[in-house]
Amino acid sequence: MAIWLEQASDDFEAKFSAFLSTKREVSEDVNVVVRAIIDDVRARGDAALLEYSARFDGIDLGETGIRVSDADVDAAVAETDPKVLDALKFAAERIERHHARQMPKDDIYEDAIGVGLGSRWTAIDAVGLYVPGGTASYPSSVLMNAVPAKVAGVPRLVMVVPANGGRINPAVLAAARIAGVSEIYRIGGAQAIAALAYGTETIAPVAKIVGPGNAYVAAAKRHVFGTVGIDMIAGPSEVLVIADRENDPDWLAADLLAQAEHDEGAQSILVTDDAELGRAVEAAVERQLKTLSRSQTAAASWRDFGAIILVPDLKACLPLANRIAAEHLELAVADPDALLPGIRNAGAIFVGRHTPEVIGDYVGGSNHVLPTARSARFSSGLSVLDFVKRTSILRLGPDQLRQLAPAAITLAQSEGLDAHARSVAIRLNAFPDSDGG
Amino acid sequence: MAIWLEQASDDFEAKFSAFLSTKREVSEDVNVVVRAIIDDVRARGDAALLEYSARFDGIDLGETGIRVSDADVDAAVAETDPKVLDALKFAAERIERHHARQMPKDDIYEDAIGVGLGSRWTAIDAVGLYVPGGTASYPSSVLMNAVPAKVAGVPRLVMVVPANGGRINPAVLAAARIAGVSEIYRIGGAQAIAALAYGTETIAPVAKIVGPGNAYVAAAKRHVFGTVGIDMIAGPSEVLVIADRENDPDWLAADLLAQAEHDEGAQSILVTDDAELGRAVEAAVERQLKTLSRSQTAAASWRDFGAIILVPDLKACLPLANRIAAEHLELAVADPDALLPGIRNAGAIFVGRHTPEVIGDYVGGSNHVLPTARSARFSSGLSVLDFVKRTSILRLGPDQLRQLAPAAITLAQSEGLDAHARSVAIRLNAFPDSDGG
Repeated sequence: MAIWLEQASDDFEAKFSAFLSTKREVSEDVNVVVRAIIDDVRARGDAALLEYSARFDGIDLGETGIRVSDADVDAAVAETDPKVLDALKFAAERIERHHARQMPKDDIYEDAIGVGLGSRWTAIDAVGLYVPGGTASYPSSVLMNAVPAKVAGVPRLVMVVPANGGRINPAVLAAARIAGVSEIYRIGGAQAIAALAYGTETIAPVAKIVGPGNAYVAAAKRHVFGTVGIDMIAGPSEVLVIADRENDPDWLAADLLAQAEHDEGAQSILVTDDAELGRAVEAAVERQLKTLSRSQTAAASWRDFGAIILVPDLKACLPLANRIAAEHLELAVADPDALLPGIRNAGAIFVGRHTPEVIGDYVGGSNHVLPTARSARFSSGLSVLDFVKRTSILRLGPDQLRQLAPAAITLAQSEGLDAHARSVAIRLNAFPDSDGG
Repeated sequence: MAIWLEQASDDFEAKFSAFLSTKREVSEDVNVVVRAIIDDVRARGDAALLEYSARFDGIDLGETGIRVSDADVDAAVAETDPKVLDALKFAAERIERHHARQMPKDDIYEDAIGVGLGSRWTAIDAVGLYVPGGTASYPSSVLMNAVPAKVAGVPRLVMVVPANGGRINPAVLAAARIAGVSEIYRIGGAQAIAALAYGTETIAPVAKIVGPGNAYVAAAKRHVFGTVGIDMIAGPSEVLVIADRENDPDWLAADLLAQAEHDEGAQSILVTDDAELGRAVEAAVERQLKTLSRSQTAAASWRDFGAIILVPDLKACLPLANRIAAEHLELAVADPDALLPGIRNAGAIFVGRHTPEVIGDYVGGSNHVLPTARSARFSSGLSVLDFVKRTSILRLGPDQLRQLAPAAITLAQSEGLDAHARSVAIRLNAFPDSDGG
């Protein structure tokens, strides 16, 4: 049973605020352990990787090697259901086509007084991609992280994935092959993050690390941030479904449960102006729950964090939606375009009754790595922009310098920075041989 | 005396690697203190702000108020040298014009099978801007942080600045007025970051915090990251000057010292193919050092972290420059365009002898908030992109759903996610009333 909130009731604001600030993540304090592991990998390199992989993953890397060989990947591809391979290729192509449009363009220009200004984009030289082991080892996530990096032109894309009990999900290796990952290592946890950030004898360091992981991986990414870049720290998934009365309750229930089955901390919220629909969806959720293989997870998520919010009319829910800032937002209404412009904060919006969020998880073409836990208020989903960086370019000749110098000197002096002022002033007495730039 | 490195010598790689990994920042472990302050501000709000401001800034906020009034800003503007005001306005206009070109465009389109896809950009609702007190309270930094936020369309831009001993640099308040800052509070330190992230009785919370600060501010930003967005954590400044023999050593010495005077941890590096020029620059640095008001700081920086790197030819220095990944890179050479394409990692490039880095600090139009400590390998300077976020949009009708469904269902089933598969499959038996989106 999810909670019910009614916007029209007197205590709604208090209840809604409390609902918004509910923490859905157990934040284990793993920092001490993680720091020790990172220090150890920095100090001992491969030897530390072997030790931690034996302890945590039950695998002897001395025997298997740290690197997953091309032959290993060939074998994994052969082992993968051809129907799944085709679906992965279909998804990869759609993801690639959409992300190609995101590549930012250089902008080099001269302003009115002849100052050359520019923004130049280049791919990051080397990127690490973390892929979890076990049940959360999703080939679709490999595509969502790796394809944009390839589109950006990242020359070296390194994947790490723990081989729990010696085994890596073959579809994950197949997805890596399809996406064009350059190197794969069978390591995971904080030790894998340390290896990517600092390098070992076998693994050359990267400049940025992306991809989801458990509390240890997240803490390790926070620790190495600065030495390398990191993507956002992903929390449990969430969906907000805004629905009018004209919906099939079973469709909506399926969407809510698709989110809930991810994780006990996942959150599914239905907003509707029709109490009857709300009750029908609730009943449908209970019915469908019984048939799911992951019903325990989904039931816990729905019970602890699910919500049905009743609003007097759907326009009134826009401020609520913007405060929730959901990772995924479905507009299951007759006229979605009436609501769309009012939604400022959302990772992704799924427009209309025939766009279940799940399409975006796999084959829509857009990215499924999206900001969770209200961070859509200030951040965006993964894109090509996460794999490039911008260098700004400034170019003055003597004329331009003369025009800009007085203001620069005034500001430098007012900030008490003499050498700054001199660096400009000294060039105003240009000498004949110095016009080479 | 800076260190000399020669690329042609046998031990260059070892020395250069050691040089690259030299830590220039004293990393005080302030986390315990900072966490206590943040918790206290969350618990006690304004009362905690009053207490910390009395203790750390020597100011009674109960008397002055937490908020800087419009009249206070009027007074500060009146107190500021009109020449400085004009220079600030001149700089703000150039910054605004350049940054306006960075505004990303929405991209909403239909693909070949009629799937609607889109990237929609919106400004962040509320942004906090931290401005340090004391000698590092730079009006130019107010412009560099605030103007891009305004260009992005951020409706609420909140500045915090500590009033050390009761006083705020009037030029900082004037710059805030020029840039269009919406609210100003006279608080600083970790307590100001906590107030921005969580809000107090007086201060409504923001969604993202930008701006430089000391070790306490940096640690506080790391702590609140997730609750709000943050910009990069800036380290000490650095410049890499690539110079041929045709330079006036005094110009280059001035540029190196402009960086060195910022901070004892700042770093100035000269790369040249001409040993004689190197020696001449070194002598010029020593001469100019004597005349600087901040000569102690600059001398310490140059002594501890300055370097002159001698290379056999200038093309050979490109791999070094890319490993250094300098915040600022000057190309003081006859043909800068021969080197420009080879530089992949740099925050900003200053092209030609008449483009001292200092122009970029103030009036070039580009941003002076740039990635330090080698982070230009994976990140970019501050831009309009830091103040917007992207929502992705997906829109399918029944036809498109039918075409994408099989691959989505295959992938969902292969990942063991039943409810995902059902959310798509259930819609394939469309019923008559459900084509509303």
